[in-house]
Amino acid sequence: MEYYKQSLALHKRLEGKIETAIKIDIETKEDLSLLYSPGVAQPCIEISKDPSTVYDYTLKGNTIAIVSDGSAILGIGNLGALAAIPVMEGKAMLFKKFGGVNAFPICLDTQDTEEIIETIRRIAPVFGGINLEDISSPRCFEIEERLQDLGIPVFHDDQHGTAIVVLAGLINACKVVGKNISDLKVVINGAGAAGIAITKMLKCIGYDDTIECTPVKDVIVCDTKGIIHSGRKDLNKVKIGLLDYTNTNDISGTLKDALKDADVFIGVSGPGMLHESEVHTMAPDPIIFACANPTPEITPEEAFKGGAAIFGTGRSDLPNQVNNVLAFPGLFRGALNAKATCITPGMKLAAAYAIAACVEFPTKDKIIPCILDLTVADKVAVAVSDAWKEYQEALLVG
Amino acid sequence: MEYYKQSLALHKRLEGKIETAIKIDIETKEDLSLLYSPGVAQPCIEISKDPSTVYDYTLKGNTIAIVSDGSAILGIGNLGALAAIPVMEGKAMLFKKFGGVNAFPICLDTQDTEEIIETIRRIAPVFGGINLEDISSPRCFEIEERLQDLGIPVFHDDQHGTAIVVLAGLINACKVVGKNISDLKVVINGAGAAGIAITKMLKCIGYDDTIECTPVKDVIVCDTKGIIHSGRKDLNKVKIGLLDYTNTNDISGTLKDALKDADVFIGVSGPGMLHESEVHTMAPDPIIFACANPTPEITPEEAFKGGAAIFGTGRSDLPNQVNNVLAFPGLFRGALNAKATCITPGMKLAAAYAIAACVEFPTKDKIIPCILDLTVADKVAVAVSDAWKEYQEALLVG
Repeated sequence: MEYYKQSLALHKRLEGKIETAIKIDIETKEDLSLLYSPGVAQPCIEISKDPSTVYDYTLKGNTIAIVSDGSAILGIGNLGALAAIPVMEGKAMLFKKFGGVNAFPICLDTQDTEEIIETIRRIAPVFGGINLEDISSPRCFEIEERLQDLGIPVFHDDQHGTAIVVLAGLINACKVVGKNISDLKVVINGAGAAGIAITKMLKCIGYDDTIECTPVKDVIVCDTKGIIHSGRKDLNKVKIGLLDYTNTNDISGTLKDALKDADVFIGVSGPGMLHESEVHTMAPDPIIFACANPTPEITPEEAFKGGAAIFGTGRSDLPNQVNNVLAFPGLFRGALNAKATCITPGMKLAAAYAIAACVEFPTKDKIIPCILDLTVADKVAVAVSDAWKEYQEALLVG
Repeated sequence: MEYYKQSLALHKRLEGKIETAIKIDIETKEDLSLLYSPGVAQPCIEISKDPSTVYDYTLKGNTIAIVSDGSAILGIGNLGALAAIPVMEGKAMLFKKFGGVNAFPICLDTQDTEEIIETIRRIAPVFGGINLEDISSPRCFEIEERLQDLGIPVFHDDQHGTAIVVLAGLINACKVVGKNISDLKVVINGAGAAGIAITKMLKCIGYDDTIECTPVKDVIVCDTKGIIHSGRKDLNKVKIGLLDYTNTNDISGTLKDALKDADVFIGVSGPGMLHESEVHTMAPDPIIFACANPTPEITPEEAFKGGAAIFGTGRSDLPNQVNNVLAFPGLFRGALNAKATCITPGMKLAAAYAIAACVEFPTKDKIIPCILDLTVADKVAVAVSDAWKEYQEALLVG
C-alpha cells in the first residue's frame, strides 16, 4: 500500500510524465521566419508535391501514436480513456528512453471497433507508426488486422510484444535445460491477446517460406473453461482459429489434464492458476513462465518445489523478468529506421532472437536480459531493420 | 529564393521541430515500477473513480492538440494533412517557447466537417484544449461552434488569435492618433476566418452585460465581390449574419467606396488590394493594418504616401507586426491555468487589452509589442485567467 501511495504522489508531483520539447531554440525574428511563417511554407509545398518527403521535413519518421480505448488497462480492466492515460504516458517514456522514439498517447473516447479503426486512419498522417495498447480481446485482433493497409506499422503490443519476449526467454531456457524448441509441448493458460499471439508465434503461423521458423511440437491453449478443443461449442472466432494448429491430439479436459508431460507452462492469465502438484506432472525440467501481473500464476517457491527448472515472471523483483519493454522500443526503432510499412512476422522473430542473443551464456537465473539494459533496444532495432530489408528483397526475388 | 532554400535545409536537418521528452529519468527497476507497471495502476484507478483527478496525475492539464485538416495552410491553400505538418510543428514550438504549453500536431486525413468534429471528440481525453488551425472558411466556424460543449477550450486561432492582436494594435493606434474606439469607422477587406472574427470582436458580438466592451461605430466588410450589404444575393450563412451588425447605412459598392472617410483599413486578404489613392480618401490620420502574408495589401511606402498615420503588417521585417503568436501561447496558458472549459469573449478581450498594455507608451512605430518579448504571454495568461474567474463569478451571481 505504501508503494501505491508513493506512485500516486510521484504522478501528482509530475503532472505528466512526458512533455513536448523544441529541438532548436527560437531566439531571433530570423529563426521565427525560417521555422514558422513565412519560411515554413516551403516544406509544406515540397510535401504537397511529393508526399514521401514528409519523412525528410517533419517529425513523422520518428513519431508514433500509442493508441488505447482504455478497455483492458493492465490487469485492472475496462476503466475508459481518461484512466488509460497514465499507462500510455509510461509507455511513451519507455519508447523514448530505450528506443529514442517520440511516442504520444492517444486515448480514445470510443470502444467501438469501427470507430477506433476510422479514427486511427484519420489521425495517421502525423505518425510513422501506431502502437495499439490495452484494447480488449477479441476486438484488438480485428482492429490490428484491418489497419495493416495503413502504410505505416500498426502493432498491438499486448499481443506481439509479450509473444516476442516469451519466445526470447524460451529460446534461452531450452539452451539451459538442453531441449530443442521443435520437441516442446507447450501449455498456454489464457486465450486473450497475449495467449493467442504467443501461440501463433510458437507455431510459426503467418510465416512464408522465406523465413526460417522452427515451430514447437504442440501447443495446448486453455481458457477459463479448460482446454480449447474441437468439441467446445462456446468458442469465439479467434479461438476456433486455434483449432487448426494447436492441440494436435484434440484432447479435452482441464488445465491439469493439459499439463501432463508438458515441457512448458506459459501463464498469461491470473494469480493462483498453477499449483505445485501440477508442476510435478509435467515432463522433466519443466519451464514455467508465470506472467500474470503483479501476482503470477504460481509463486517461485511452489514452482521450484514442484520441480521447475526455469521460472520467469513479469515482476521486476524476481529473476527472468518477461517484460515487453525489451521488445517494443527496439522493434519500432528498427521499423522506423527501415521506413517499414508494416511489422512482418520475420521482424517479430528477429526481435525475439536478438533479445535472446543479448544473454551470451544463459543460466537458470538469467535467460532474459535485464529490462534496464540500454543495449538491448539497439540490437533489436538492427535485427528488425535487417529483417525488413530481407523481406523487401525476398519480395523482389519472388 | 535563397531564403526558402535555407528554410528547407533547416527542416531537413531537424527532421521534426518538436519531440517528446521524459520529465523524470528511469534509472532503476524501482523507478520503472513506480512510473510504469505495477505502480501506474494506482493513478489509473484514482482517475476511474474521480475523472477530475486526470488533471492531477497526467499531462492533460498542460497539453493541447493543434488540429488541422490542411485545407487552408497559411496563404498557400488546400494542400492536405501531410503538408500541414510543418506549420503545426512550428505552432507547437511557439506554444512551448512562449506559453510553456505542450502542443501536439494532429493533422487529419479528412476535410469533412462531421468527421472532423467526431474525430476531435474521440481524441479529446488526453488534451486540455484544442487549437484549431488552417481549416478553411466557412467550415471552421461550424467546427469550432459545435465543439464548444467539449468541456475543454476549443479555439480557432486563425479567427480569434488574429482578431485579438488586431484589436490590441487598434487600441494603441487610437492612443497615438487621438481617436476613440467608439468613434471609428472600420473597413475590413476579407470575409474569411480572420475577417469575420475581427468584425465580431470590434462590434462586441457575443458579449453579455457582465463584460465591458466598447464597439466601434461601424464596420464595413468587403469580400472579393465588394461591400457586403443586404442587396447581395451571393452571401453564405456566415456573411448574411454580418448584415445584423455591420454596414449601418447598408451601402453598396466596391472596397474603394467603402474606404471613403474610413478611419481604419484592416486587410486580411491578399497582396495589392489597397492603393495610395484610396488611402487619400480615408478620414484624417488613417490606420492601416495590411495583414496579408507574406505580401501585404499595400507597401508601407505607398501607405505613407497616401497619408497613413499608422501602418502595421504581418511581416517580421517591418515595424508593428500583427502576429497571433502574441496571443495564442498566453491565451492557452491562462485558460489551462484556470482550468477553463471554454474560451469566453471576455477572455479574448482581456488578451487584447493585455497585449496592448505591454506597450507602455505607444508610438507610430510601436503600437504592438515585439513578438519575441517573452513577458507578453505571461501577462496575457494572467489577464485571461482572471477573465475566466470573473466569468465564473458572474455566473454564480447571475
